[in-house]
Amino acid sequence: MTATEAERTIERVESSPFHEPVHPAHTRVLKGELGVPVTRVELTNGATFDRYTTEGPGSQPEVGLPLLREQWILDRDDTEEYDGREVQLLDNGKAALRSGVHREQWQGRAYKPRRAKPGKNLSQMHYAKQGIVTPEMEYVAAREGCSVELVRSEVASGRAIIPNNVNHPESEPMIIGRRFLVKVNANIGNSAVTSSIAEEVEKLTWAIKWGTDTVMDLSTGDDIHTTREWIVRNSPVPIGTVPIYQALEKVNGEADKLTWEIFRDTVIEQAEQGVDYMTIHAGVLLRYVPMTANRVTGIVSRGGSIMAGWCLAHHQENFLYTHFDELCEIFQQYDVAFSLGDGLRPGATADANDEAQLSELRTLAELTERAWKYDVQVMVEGPGHVPLNLVEENVVLQQDWCHGAPFYTLGPLVTDIAPGYDHITSAIGAATIAMHGTAMLCYVTPKEHLGLPNRDDVKTGVITYKLSAHAADVAKGHPNARDWDDALSHARFEFRWRDQFALSLDPHTAEAFHDETLPADNAKTAHFCSMCGPKFCSMKISQDVRDRFGADLQPGSADAAVADAAAAEAGMRAKSQEFVELGKSVYVEPAQANA
Amino acid sequence: MTATEAERTIERVESSPFHEPVHPAHTRVLKGELGVPVTRVELTNGATFDRYTTEGPGSQPEVGLPLLREQWILDRDDTEEYDGREVQLLDNGKAALRSGVHREQWQGRAYKPRRAKPGKNLSQMHYAKQGIVTPEMEYVAAREGCSVELVRSEVASGRAIIPNNVNHPESEPMIIGRRFLVKVNANIGNSAVTSSIAEEVEKLTWAIKWGTDTVMDLSTGDDIHTTREWIVRNSPVPIGTVPIYQALEKVNGEADKLTWEIFRDTVIEQAEQGVDYMTIHAGVLLRYVPMTANRVTGIVSRGGSIMAGWCLAHHQENFLYTHFDELCEIFQQYDVAFSLGDGLRPGATADANDEAQLSELRTLAELTERAWKYDVQVMVEGPGHVPLNLVEENVVLQQDWCHGAPFYTLGPLVTDIAPGYDHITSAIGAATIAMHGTAMLCYVTPKEHLGLPNRDDVKTGVITYKLSAHAADVAKGHPNARDWDDALSHARFEFRWRDQFALSLDPHTAEAFHDETLPADNAKTAHFCSMCGPKFCSMKISQDVRDRFGADLQPGSADAAVADAAAAEAGMRAKSQEFVELGKSVYVEPAQANA
Repeated sequence: MTATEAERTIERVESSPFHEPVHPAHTRVLKGELGVPVTRVELTNGATFDRYTTEGPGSQPEVGLPLLREQWILDRDDTEEYDGREVQLLDNGKAALRSGVHREQWQGRAYKPRRAKPGKNLSQMHYAKQGIVTPEMEYVAAREGCSVELVRSEVASGRAIIPNNVNHPESEPMIIGRRFLVKVNANIGNSAVTSSIAEEVEKLTWAIKWGTDTVMDLSTGDDIHTTREWIVRNSPVPIGTVPIYQALEKVNGEADKLTWEIFRDTVIEQAEQGVDYMTIHAGVLLRYVPMTANRVTGIVSRGGSIMAGWCLAHHQENFLYTHFDELCEIFQQYDVAFSLGDGLRPGATADANDEAQLSELRTLAELTERAWKYDVQVMVEGPGHVPLNLVEENVVLQQDWCHGAPFYTLGPLVTDIAPGYDHITSAIGAATIAMHGTAMLCYVTPKEHLGLPNRDDVKTGVITYKLSAHAADVAKGHPNARDWDDALSHARFEFRWRDQFALSLDPHTAEAFHDETLPADNAKTAHFCSMCGPKFCSMKISQDVRDRFGADLQPGSADAAVADAAAAEAGMRAKSQEFVELGKSVYVEPAQANA
Repeated sequence: MTATEAERTIERVESSPFHEPVHPAHTRVLKGELGVPVTRVELTNGATFDRYTTEGPGSQPEVGLPLLREQWILDRDDTEEYDGREVQLLDNGKAALRSGVHREQWQGRAYKPRRAKPGKNLSQMHYAKQGIVTPEMEYVAAREGCSVELVRSEVASGRAIIPNNVNHPESEPMIIGRRFLVKVNANIGNSAVTSSIAEEVEKLTWAIKWGTDTVMDLSTGDDIHTTREWIVRNSPVPIGTVPIYQALEKVNGEADKLTWEIFRDTVIEQAEQGVDYMTIHAGVLLRYVPMTANRVTGIVSRGGSIMAGWCLAHHQENFLYTHFDELCEIFQQYDVAFSLGDGLRPGATADANDEAQLSELRTLAELTERAWKYDVQVMVEGPGHVPLNLVEENVVLQQDWCHGAPFYTLGPLVTDIAPGYDHITSAIGAATIAMHGTAMLCYVTPKEHLGLPNRDDVKTGVITYKLSAHAADVAKGHPNARDWDDALSHARFEFRWRDQFALSLDPHTAEAFHDETLPADNAKTAHFCSMCGPKFCSMKISQDVRDRFGADLQPGSADAAVADAAAAEAGMRAKSQEFVELGKSVYVEPAQANA
């Protein structure tokens, strides 16, 4: 993006506990008519580098975020306010039922839910198919640095989705599709065992600060309804859920007691709150369940195992499958997107790409086409645990069978032997499957298989997945993706340490690691680090080599090399001088006598 | 490996500060005539799982390790002891020169160095070419669980190497080649800035405890000779070095002053100490240096930049290239293996697979054939920083041009934007390049680009690379590689928590993460963890599904499924019972009322 566009730097919400920038050199800048945000990194050489940002303006949790999209929604004049479903004590679980009150109820903006006027369809896919360019599409195009027509046509074809429920006007539109930047999702949510509402809101804000593009609230304990309200009202990114979790809470945790009516009511409850996409395990068909009997780890998806249990208990077909069209009719009224759950994904490398997994995928492909008949946006979920040699096949088959609907994978983990390091075993699979076309990656934290992620785990998970997604963007040759790498590498070669930190995915960790061995402030401009020391700094030697290049170039060497060497020489000579002074001041070790 | 073979459990060296096993369920067992070590994991279900081990018997640093290979070497009767080169003060750097004494000199076993008798050639490749099967080859075959003929033929062809200098009889033979398990190297070594001899020995022992297959001593500060002596005498794994680092110390850190004579003397000094492989940057030719002028990060290899500087200063061809045959004559007398350094490897994704890198690779291919004429073992080093889509090309070209000589790569890192997380950015490239044929991976720690790795960084780097190497073994379909994954996944599905920890690459971290939220001891047998809680544990639900399978199977379902379901049913019924009791005792949260 060029700095010539109209732009303004906005004040962060001072009252927000979450408004501090990641780094002092970062500012949030709003660009163009729509005020599309970027993180601007101010470099010490006077240049700036603009980065895609997910952080949002920052909010005071009790108040929530401003309504960025409200006017856009009103201008379309195809929605109506209505008296939403009354919140029931059961919506917040047994604790609320027992106490007779809702804990920590949302006291911020009161609102009536919106839905489509009779006969209307609110999905971005519906607008796109009619050739309508929405502000959401323009906003997304500006964020991605692509043409708005690319956005419209990809959304119209179903190859990309813009998840934004009309009841979540706080959200900054983003797009999920293989032609666009690879996105990352972070899961948060309380469980039967741990954490409070405030903690979940902080995790949300923490996750977006580090760059997650969407957040899924997977709460399963008490206060589910209220927790979700706080999260949606404070989230600048789309929120996803797995409604079957709350539905199960409503029937005492007994899968047998689940019914379509309870599930449908839960979906409407969540749609009215503004959930942008919902995981629906409609592909777990009765006849597929026996296919998991010989697996090493059976069924490892929560939703998948719940629906498998229901199917066997009633000996009936999955009610999410039999009532799928009704779901589509609900979703189109709010623009909720499907995330078709892979309930039979492999939970061990031994079970990868097996009959159960691929049979379900064929059904998800059928459901994708059914949803598209209603112009409802769809993405398809993928594994899981997959040996590295079988990773590509997963996305190739999904893209083929599902006609290019966005693929959304969990990792995959490429080995099962490293619990405690599964953010890494999965980052290997994630970068690879994204390079081959996966549109969004669901993060895995170091706590996977072991426990609930805490604040540090959430950060590690997000950073690990941002670097995996970016590695895929670079590998795919996404326009401008490598500019970020080049900006950091130039800073590295020129020993602009502060710029290296400011351009890092995690400036705090990079600077802290550097300072462990070289805390001195002038070490921030030293022409080496403690890894090699001054004498062995290859980049310094390499620069000295450049300084002397001109004289040593052989006849026949590329003119470009000559020109560059000359250019390099000037800049480097100054630095060499600088180095002589610094070299002596930074160290006192004997080794310096040799320098 | 079967437990029926002759085997014995050996006592660890009680006096060693490093003799504690990684986990109480681990024992070191020596198998067969040669006493090939494995780590035996005792599982709670009575089974055992044997793992490849690199730990060695443990040593008392001042004493060193027993001489495992001494008799094998003597039996060949082709070596002779001689009065080695006299150690000079300069060998330990300026500090020793100034003080006139060697600090912390090695006081353990005194020895005279060995070399080939006149006209003899000690390399394993030489024996293999003549059809001789050495104990080293038998030992390696037992470790890898393959035929000794595969080992001999791969070594004879140059497609694999067994690095073991006759002056390092303490080492447990291992093999590096694409037909065998992917290996990992960890770099240690002091620098001008930090760390002591004791620290380096501890880093060595720490690195092999976590599974590194070789260790490179990259010391560049003072006490280089003495530090190396302590490391080799205490190392059960091959030790590699980059002799140019010490040679540079001997000429005051001024690359211009380097000479072939000083370098040659340094190589002999290190060969007499028992260094098993040496990185030689003989491919950095004068005419290639200008090719780096337009790079984003120029030359980032220390050795490469030193030799480039020398070439330009003298305007002569790299003396390592012009004297390469003399090096081969020295190496064959000790069985030192070449690690042909990639001095022009890319240091930024922008510079990957460029003219400079590939020109040098062609020269490394030429040098490989020259070394093979002397029956000297060779591996070839590779990058570095490479976008994921260009990773495979690196190993494909190297294997083709170098006739299958083992490839040894540093990562590669697939993006430049994540300093502080480069163990992860590089693990992505490492697993991928290893799947395509790289034989050994040089680890990258979180401190890469920022500082010297400490103890924790070394562990993180080794674990990260072990999981990457194993992921590649699984992807390559290496015989039995996936058994480890399956053993852990079975333990996971059967809620054998203690076995999951014992089978993990890092049991301590896995158990600590689990205990953060479920410390209770009986939680170690609970049928869930805090990630999902009891109601939402998909594996528990999945097992309940199995319990009820028989009745729900449809006509036409696979008989196998029926059989398995029946089998599963029995075991699971007991566990379900167990769960009812445990479920109530582990938690006190309201959620339990629902369970």
